[in-house]
Amino acid sequence: MEKKAGNLIVISGFSGAGKGTIVKKLIEEYDNYELSVSMTTRAPRPGEVHGVHYFFSTDEEFEKIIADNGMIEYAGYCGHYYGTPRAFVEQKLAEGKDVILEIEIQGAQKVRRQFPSAVLLFVMAPSAKVLHQRLTGRGTESEEVIRGRMWRAVEESEEVDTYDYVVINDDLEECVKQVHGIVTAAHARPSQNQEFINTIKQELKDILKGEEEQ
Amino acid sequence: MEKKAGNLIVISGFSGAGKGTIVKKLIEEYDNYELSVSMTTRAPRPGEVHGVHYFFSTDEEFEKIIADNGMIEYAGYCGHYYGTPRAFVEQKLAEGKDVILEIEIQGAQKVRRQFPSAVLLFVMAPSAKVLHQRLTGRGTESEEVIRGRMWRAVEESEEVDTYDYVVINDDLEECVKQVHGIVTAAHARPSQNQEFINTIKQELKDILKGEEEQ
Repeated sequence: MEKKAGNLIVISGFSGAGKGTIVKKLIEEYDNYELSVSMTTRAPRPGEVHGVHYFFSTDEEFEKIIADNGMIEYAGYCGHYYGTPRAFVEQKLAEGKDVILEIEIQGAQKVRRQFPSAVLLFVMAPSAKVLHQRLTGRGTESEEVIRGRMWRAVEESEEVDTYDYVVINDDLEECVKQVHGIVTAAHARPSQNQEFINTIKQELKDILKGEEEQ
Repeated sequence: MEKKAGNLIVISGFSGAGKGTIVKKLIEEYDNYELSVSMTTRAPRPGEVHGVHYFFSTDEEFEKIIADNGMIEYAGYCGHYYGTPRAFVEQKLAEGKDVILEIEIQGAQKVRRQFPSAVLLFVMAPSAKVLHQRLTGRGTESEEVIRGRMWRAVEESEEVDTYDYVVINDDLEECVKQVHGIVTAAHARPSQNQEFINTIKQELKDILKGEEEQ
């Protein structure tokens, strides 16, 4: 069997919906996934490891990569760059890995334009009440920040239909299984089975020709 | 939870690839499926039951239904009509059932134009050799008919990319699971979760507004 190219999997979703945990579980439980590591120009926080949490770079390095078309998508936030380096993603896809990008809606649309077969998933909490509880339950953010995230979720609700799939994170294990099921289905698309299709077509012709010659 | 509309599932594939068995197993093993029964103007064969294997009709009845836009797709074959009555399909979809149509490529494309969110699957044998063995192993068809089916498979191979998914029927149980996985994934499309999305958006606004009023 030929080595099939992997899928590019974009995961976005409400802040507090549990995207990070879903991604972590997917990588732990299945061996077909690879997480894309973002690059940023902000300083590392305590405990953050270069190449694990982020690739940390200078503004000059980051801008050089942009100029070389080396970022699939990037954005500025609070005076710093954040982006998805192209080389790692393309290498892992070629190796047959399903590469996960955990990014925002705007970035997801940029990815879609460059990788039309990317699979875009949007993670939602099972209800607004649960989302609110999860955000307040962290106990780390101010009332104002939480309100900002809730309003952001309202805005994002308007754009969910730009995604291929909506995943509702009610039960974590079920949700992880559902995401894996969606990715598994994506492997059955004709574009990912072109070599098999070509092979069977040629084999059919060979059998028909062989019979004629007998 | 609201009653979600079902998916229209079109299953096509090589003659001898095992479409019929897959469909039978899906209906036996899961309760979300409903098989669309075709209508035909040919005479019933021994053992065929009206409403189970086909709806049998006269040419006049059939043509009246066509004139009333009551067929999703239809075709003539060996002097008889074969078609998919619309009313049954639309009723079952509204009831939340995933309605299976087992039809040919041309019919599949007609369905796609009327039901853009239909899920189109194409079933292939694992190899040309296996397909040839299955067709000859039946022992019911002439050499010529088998050759005709093999050539038809070559032709169909050219059009597989008009389908959403390619399913390779190597192990039947695995294949049935795969098809069910694809249909399950289809339920996570935003179009099928619009009511949930609207509800959570409204709930989010209500919580934000409630807090302001306190």
